[in-house]
Order: sequence, then C-alpha cells, then structure tokens
Amino acid sequence: MQVYDTTLRDGGQREGITYSAVDKLAVAKLLDEFGVGFIEGGWPGALPTDTEFFRRARNELTLKHAVLAAFGSTRKASLRADADPQVKALLDAETPVVTLVAKSDLRHVEKALRTTAAENLAMVHDTVSLLVAEGRRVFVDCEHFFDGFRFDPEFTRSVVRAALEAGAEKVVMCDTNGGMLPSMITRAIGELGIDVDSLGIHCQNDTSCAVANTIAAVEAGVPHFQCTANGYGERPGNADLFAVVANLQLKLGMPVLPEGCLEQMVRVSHAIAEIANIAPDTHQAYAGSSAFAHKAGLHASAIKVDPLLYNHVDPSVVGNDMRILVTEMAGRASIELKSRELGLDLAGHPEALSRVTDRVKHLETRGWSFEAADASFELMVRAELDQATARPFGLESYRVLVEHREDGAVVSEATVKVRVRGERVIATAEGNGPVNALDEALRVALTKHYPELKGFELNDYKVRILEGSHGTDAVTRVLVETSDGDRSWTTVGVHENVVEASWHALVDALTYGLARSPVPS
Amino acid sequence: MQVYDTTLRDGGQREGITYSAVDKLAVAKLLDEFGVGFIEGGWPGALPTDTEFFRRARNELTLKHAVLAAFGSTRKASLRADADPQVKALLDAETPVVTLVAKSDLRHVEKALRTTAAENLAMVHDTVSLLVAEGRRVFVDCEHFFDGFRFDPEFTRSVVRAALEAGAEKVVMCDTNGGMLPSMITRAIGELGIDVDSLGIHCQNDTSCAVANTIAAVEAGVPHFQCTANGYGERPGNADLFAVVANLQLKLGMPVLPEGCLEQMVRVSHAIAEIANIAPDTHQAYAGSSAFAHKAGLHASAIKVDPLLYNHVDPSVVGNDMRILVTEMAGRASIELKSRELGLDLAGHPEALSRVTDRVKHLETRGWSFEAADASFELMVRAELDQATARPFGLESYRVLVEHREDGAVVSEATVKVRVRGERVIATAEGNGPVNALDEALRVALTKHYPELKGFELNDYKVRILEGSHGTDAVTRVLVETSDGDRSWTTVGVHENVVEASWHALVDALTYGLARSPVPS
Repeated sequence: MQVYDTTLRDGGQREGITYSAVDKLAVAKLLDEFGVGFIEGGWPGALPTDTEFFRRARNELTLKHAVLAAFGSTRKASLRADADPQVKALLDAETPVVTLVAKSDLRHVEKALRTTAAENLAMVHDTVSLLVAEGRRVFVDCEHFFDGFRFDPEFTRSVVRAALEAGAEKVVMCDTNGGMLPSMITRAIGELGIDVDSLGIHCQNDTSCAVANTIAAVEAGVPHFQCTANGYGERPGNADLFAVVANLQLKLGMPVLPEGCLEQMVRVSHAIAEIANIAPDTHQAYAGSSAFAHKAGLHASAIKVDPLLYNHVDPSVVGNDMRILVTEMAGRASIELKSRELGLDLAGHPEALSRVTDRVKHLETRGWSFEAADASFELMVRAELDQATARPFGLESYRVLVEHREDGAVVSEATVKVRVRGERVIATAEGNGPVNALDEALRVALTKHYPELKGFELNDYKVRILEGSHGTDAVTRVLVETSDGDRSWTTVGVHENVVEASWHALVDALTYGLARSPVPS
Repeated sequence: MQVYDTTLRDGGQREGITYSAVDKLAVAKLLDEFGVGFIEGGWPGALPTDTEFFRRARNELTLKHAVLAAFGSTRKASLRADADPQVKALLDAETPVVTLVAKSDLRHVEKALRTTAAENLAMVHDTVSLLVAEGRRVFVDCEHFFDGFRFDPEFTRSVVRAALEAGAEKVVMCDTNGGMLPSMITRAIGELGIDVDSLGIHCQNDTSCAVANTIAAVEAGVPHFQCTANGYGERPGNADLFAVVANLQLKLGMPVLPEGCLEQMVRVSHAIAEIANIAPDTHQAYAGSSAFAHKAGLHASAIKVDPLLYNHVDPSVVGNDMRILVTEMAGRASIELKSRELGLDLAGHPEALSRVTDRVKHLETRGWSFEAADASFELMVRAELDQATARPFGLESYRVLVEHREDGAVVSEATVKVRVRGERVIATAEGNGPVNALDEALRVALTKHYPELKGFELNDYKVRILEGSHGTDAVTRVLVETSDGDRSWTTVGVHENVVEASWHALVDALTYGLARSPVPS
C-alpha cells in the first residue's frame, strides 16, 4: 500500500496557509516520523519556495520512511517535453518520484487547456516517457477524473492508458471538484476496466465524504492513496491522512504504516497545525483534543464502569487521551470524575461537590468554560474542599497604558500595586502589548519573593470573543497556557474587558504554578 | 423519507454548547425553515431547560414543516412504566412524537444498566406500549446498535423486534461510539434481516465517515435518518444535516426537503452557529464560507472561462457563493479576478496589478490576510489605481488606559488627537474595554464633521493570535465587521499590540464606510 502525502502541495491550497521553505522542511520531517511512504514537497519551478525546499531538502532532510516527490504538469501544448522549462525544473528537483498532473476531462482539455484530445494524450505520453527515461518513478494525477469519466468515459480511459503505456507507475483518480460519494467511487472503478493495481485515489471533501471515498477505493483494491495532514486543502479540504490511515489500520486491519508510527498521530497532527498556523480542529476524528472527550452526564457515570465501552478505539493507540468535560450538562458525575482525574476526592464530600457543581453552572452562564482550563478548575475545587491554594499576592490595583505617539511609536506600559507577604510593592514594566506589559510588571513585583517565577513561560495566549453579543461590547474569554519547562497548565479568565479577563487568567496561572513549584518558596 | 434533526438534544453534547430555552426556540424555528420533518427538542424532566422549552413551544413556536419530538429513556428497571416520573415527563411534554433511547448492546445492559437481557426487553416493550396507547408516535433509538450487533446479533435483533412489536414506528440504529465505515453499515443492514422500512440511522463522526455512513444506510433503503446542524455533537460530532441532505438531493436525486428549503442552508447553518456560540466552520462542505472558495492561481485563470467546471454544484442552490481568495499563491490572475468582483478594473492596469500583488505578498509575510477583509483590500487596490479613498482624518496620537482600581472597578478610557478638515480635535471617551473606548473616542472626535457615523455599528470583532510565536509576544490579527444598517464590510489590522491592530482595522472601517455613505458629507 502506498501512503502518499500532499500536505505540502495540495494542502497548501487551504485558505490561510502559506508555508516557508523552513516550514516545509519541518512538516516533511514530521510526516516521515508518522511513517508515510511519499511526501509531495511542492511544485519546483512554479513557486520559488518550493524550488528552495527541494534544493535544501537534499542536504538538510534525512528521511527514514518516505521518499520525496516533486509535483508538476505535463509539458505545454506547444513545446517538446525536453524543451519545457517546467519539466526541466522537475528534473532539477532531483527527487526519486515525480507526480504529473494531467487533464482527464475532455471539457477541461478544450476549455481550460485550449488544445485537442490527441495533443493532450501526446503531452501525457511525452512527459511521462522523458521522466521515466531519466530514471524517475512517475505518478500521474488525473485531474477531474470522475467528472471526466462521467462526461466521456472513453476519453478518460485513453488518458489512463497513455500514462501507463509511457511507463507511469500509478495513475491517480482525482476527484478534483470533490463531488463524489463512496458508492459512486466503487461503481466508477468497476466500470473503468483498468487493472486496479495501477490506480491511485485522491479525494477532495466537498460532499464531506473524502475519507469514506478514499476507503471505498482501497476496499475496491486501489493500492495508492493521496491525503493531507488534518485534511488541509482547497475549499472543504482533502481526505484527512490521519483518519484514513487510522481507519485502514484499526477498522480494516491493514497495516499501512511502519510499526510504532500510528501512536505519533496526535503529536504530528498538532505540530503540523502549529507550523501551518491553523488552530487544531478540536473535533477532528482520532486526532482532535475532543475526539475522546465525554460530556454527557448519562454516559459519564457509566464510563467509570468500563471506559472501553464508550470509545470506538483505545485513544492511546493514536496517541490521544480520553477526557471528561466539566459542564452543566455533565452534572455531578462528570465533575466528580474530572476531580478524580486531578487527584481530588469529591466522592467523599457531597456538599463540596454540590457547591462546585453550582459554581460551574453559575460561571458558565457568564461565559466561563473550564473544559480546557484544568488548572483554574482545580483551584476552584480545592477552595471548595477547604484546601484553598494560598494566593501568592493580593492586588490593590493595576493600570495599563497603550500609546500611539506622534512619531508613530506604539508603547505599552503597566503598573501593578500588590501586597506580597506583608510588603506593598509597586512595579512598572513595558511590553509589546497591554497584556504582555501586565505580565511583565507582575513578574517584576513578585520575583523577589518568588524567584521560581523566572522559570515560568507563557506558552500560549488565546482570546475568544464570545458571540451572541455585539462587537467590542462582547464578553471576552482568555485562555493562558503556562509552562515551567517540565509541565504546562491552562487557566481561564472572562470579562467584558480583555485586559481584565487576561489578568484573571494570569493570576490563576501564577497561583497554580507557584503552588506546584519544586523550589521551596 | 424522514429527516429527523437532533441538534437541540444530541447536538448539545458538543463541547462548548449550552442552549437556553430561548436559544432552543430560535434554533427550532430555523430548522423548520430548512424543512426538516422532525425536531428533537431535548429531554423533558431530565433537564430544566428542556422542560421549559417544550412548555413554551406549545404557545410560542409555530412550525410549518416539522413536528416536535421529546427524547427520553425507557422506564427504569425497577419501576412500572406508568409509575416512572421520567416517562411521565415525556407525556407532559405533549409532543406528537417521543423518541426513546434503549440499550441494544448486551454488555451495556449488564455493565451500565446492571439488569438482565429479559428485563431490558420488558423495559422497551412496556414503555413503547404505554406511549403508543397515549397516542404518541414512537421512535426507538438503539444505543450502541452496531457494536452490540457485532457482539451478540441475536440479542440486538430481539431489542429491535420488541420495539416494533410494541408499536414503535421506527427503530433507529445508532452508531453511538462512531466507529463504523460505510461498507460495515451496508453489511450490517443486510445481515440484520429486519424490514428496512422500519429502520432509521444515527451516526457519530469518530471515523470521519458519519455523512457517508448515513448515506450508505439510505442507499440500502433506510427511510429515516437523524442528523444535527453543522454536525454538532459529542466528540467529533454527529452526521452533518446539511451535507447529508445536500448529498441526497443533489447527488442522488432524492427530494428529501420541501421545495425552496435547500437554498436556506447557508443562512440557517450560520444562524444556528451564532446561537450555539460556535464559530462557523469555514471549511464545512456546502455551507462553509470556504466551501466554494478558490485559491489556486492555476485554477483562477481557468475559472474565468467557466466557473461550473470548477464547482461540484452551483453554489447558489445551497445559498452559497463562489469566492476568489487573495493570496500569494493565487498570484496575479486571482487578484485581477477578485478586483473585478469588487468592480475595479486591474486588467487594463498591469503596473498597478503588479504593485498590488507585491504589496499583498509583502503584507502576508507579516501576518496580514485579505481573504476575509474585502474592504481593506479594496482600499489598497484603489490607492494603487490612483483612486485613493480620501482619508476622513489624520491621526496625531492616541492613548488608551485600562485601570483596575482599588475598589475593584475596571475602567477603560481613550483619548485621540486627530486632524479633521483642518481642525485639530481632541476627544476622550470611556468604553467597556480598550478597543471599545478607542472606537467611542474616535466617534466623538469625528461626528461633528461626519454625522453619518452615527449610523455605523460594529457588528463583529474577532481577534486571532497568530501561532508560531510565543504567548503575549505574538502577532495579533484583528478583523472588524461594520454595518450601516443596509450593508456590512470587513477590515483587517495586524500588529504585535492588539490595540494598535484594532486601530488599523477601525480606521479602515470608517474610511471605507464614509466613502460609500449615501449621506453627503
């Protein structure tokens, strides 16, 4: 089975993604760690970043499982293949594999390419032959394959045959417009009349069936599939590599990845999201942080009995975890279970459990959410259990100033007035934004008494404007992730003022971190 | 075909969703406008919000296409059906339809319910009989149907038979843990040996195949399917109502909705997202704002020739539009096409087109994105075409102060110093956050010269912390949507300081709006 990844080429078509060459090298390394067989790096010659990627990959990228593929087009209608600079750029990329896109829908040949059916076949034949003669393994991506096959089956078949006769290793059926359903894929492969061993499949997600369509092709015997990490791609995206691979391995018993790779999924998925600068999809199948998160109160009590009855697979086989969510709907059972997960026994304290449940309900109506903020939740539970975590300081007041000066400079400055162990401390600091300035000022004020603060780093800062209210009047929820180098924790703050919301989250973050700090304070 | 929606019950299990009774009434109205046949409103008796919803629905909700269903459980193991308060609450909801959840996996009967197979059958039989005798149409949701059928087919079959014999109209096969693939659904329905006319299907999305699984069941003859709007639901969610319905209507030619309803999709989908307080999934099939958005430079030039060759369906049939995205990868062809969409001719100005392309590339490397900010893009193109939009004022400086005072009050205040038509104006205003204060101060400063500003409202304000950098140091991108009552427009600002980023977006918003204002200024 050939697992072919095109995150770096077709995945880059997703709205919001712009990879640098360095990004591409990092993503390729991650894909290799996940164990894919082929990594399509981009279109050398057409995009300068991609040319640079292939040049640097030769020295900077050591792959354990995968080989690189360069993507490009068949020769231009007017040119000989060996005179086409785009074809030359493909050879210059020096990859073992070249993947060529070819037209296989007669309407696109005539309307977009503005050439004839015969010339299109010659373009496929000439380009594949040249690349094969130069020692390349060649895959041919037949664009608009299924639409073309429906419109004029014989023309589409002729393109497939031309590619195979010229020496292409696989011809890939691309559902470029993404309009197929699984039953249609199965039917088309049957009607095509070409040996399935020489075929591949590439699906877009416009019917929300890209994963199922890919699986349907593999079930029909197709031994090569093209996907992207997290389903990135144009419009609704491509078939998600992670869901396809997990389904094949875990549901159909096909070991498509090398041993030990599947459990890298969550790490690789989230790291690629970070590089692509796309917030991870929390609801993504298998890899999402909510993929095994249970909220229903009904189920939460039964999950205590046997977690495997409530998960379709063991989350650890894809490197994920089960989570219990703290929400109003979940009720007492989930809150108890969540607390147990954090090492706190609420089962023996029914009154504290009621107080926590009431408090969660009350705060949720005001926009708070503890689903992602375990540290803030733990501080609250401890307070209700009379194990209140000592607050490291008391706030008197703070003031934050942002100025856009006449010379165009933008400066942020914060002053905090706090009481620390009986001492009143006033500290001022600058930052590159209002929250950063506040964070800095608080650290200046506290570091004398809590030197371990120097080891804390703010890893992530998320702002969510809660919808349903209007514009800048809306309630703001801030999530802060803090790390001490060994572990990280997340806290939450909610307020109509983003600075005050951030303040709440920052204070919880320091309180939680200092209480758990190994340095005696 | 029975189109059964459970957005208000199972959809509410999604992380982050908490509906009020008023929210539920609004969502039910929207679902009815979309033409579904059944709306499951919630679990009366179990959740106070749901009891309130059904009570108010009787007077406040007039449905054109749908009937309401109340969801609940079969009677408790220890009680007679007519003595079970939960069953009584189902009758008190006074809905024409009641949907009962029943265990159909023997392991869940024994481990979660802690009763016997025989008692479980009696619970199903008694509860269905009672409800039917009270004049209700009854659907039975068989929880963990497919897992149970694999584990002990005869037990699962016996539950289905018990429900049908007691008078249930449909028995719904629920893939509760979401682990199925389409081929498995088709096979199980064949092996079940029950008349497909009495079956329904309910799929979770844990393999990323919920839509395909639902379609597979319908293709096998199942005439009842349960979905949620936008696929909301626990873990990766449920089958997305919109994709399932569009696939059935547009791909398989099954008219499952009343005429005129399908084109309400985008409006209904986005309105429900707003009520659920979930950012719409831009990449959702059919309904997402990117579902028909084209980025590839390669394609953008061909799209000019024939848009239908590049869309799997005409976007307008689901109430969506094709969009051309402005990005580096898209290149000159897309930028030209996008400008044409905005009524600006760049085709005749190749030098301006080059300057715009270069400027977009440069700004994108610094975190800007014009994909959603048409108004900021238009201001930039006009400037390069020497049709620069007159800036309504010049900034000298601004200053924003956020104070958390000793008494706990949090105040925000902004002062702007600007030049407007030769006059120097200094204005100060308060707001409930730093950006709101800045917006207010700017309005105070400008309203004398631009009274039409009073009609502008800030509709939406989005903050995105760009990943890849650390914590509060990160670059911030702000999108502002402004409306003048008739139309709305979106502008963008990027800066490491959230206040300055917001300032850029606010200034573009006013500049654009004033230039287009019908009031002579």
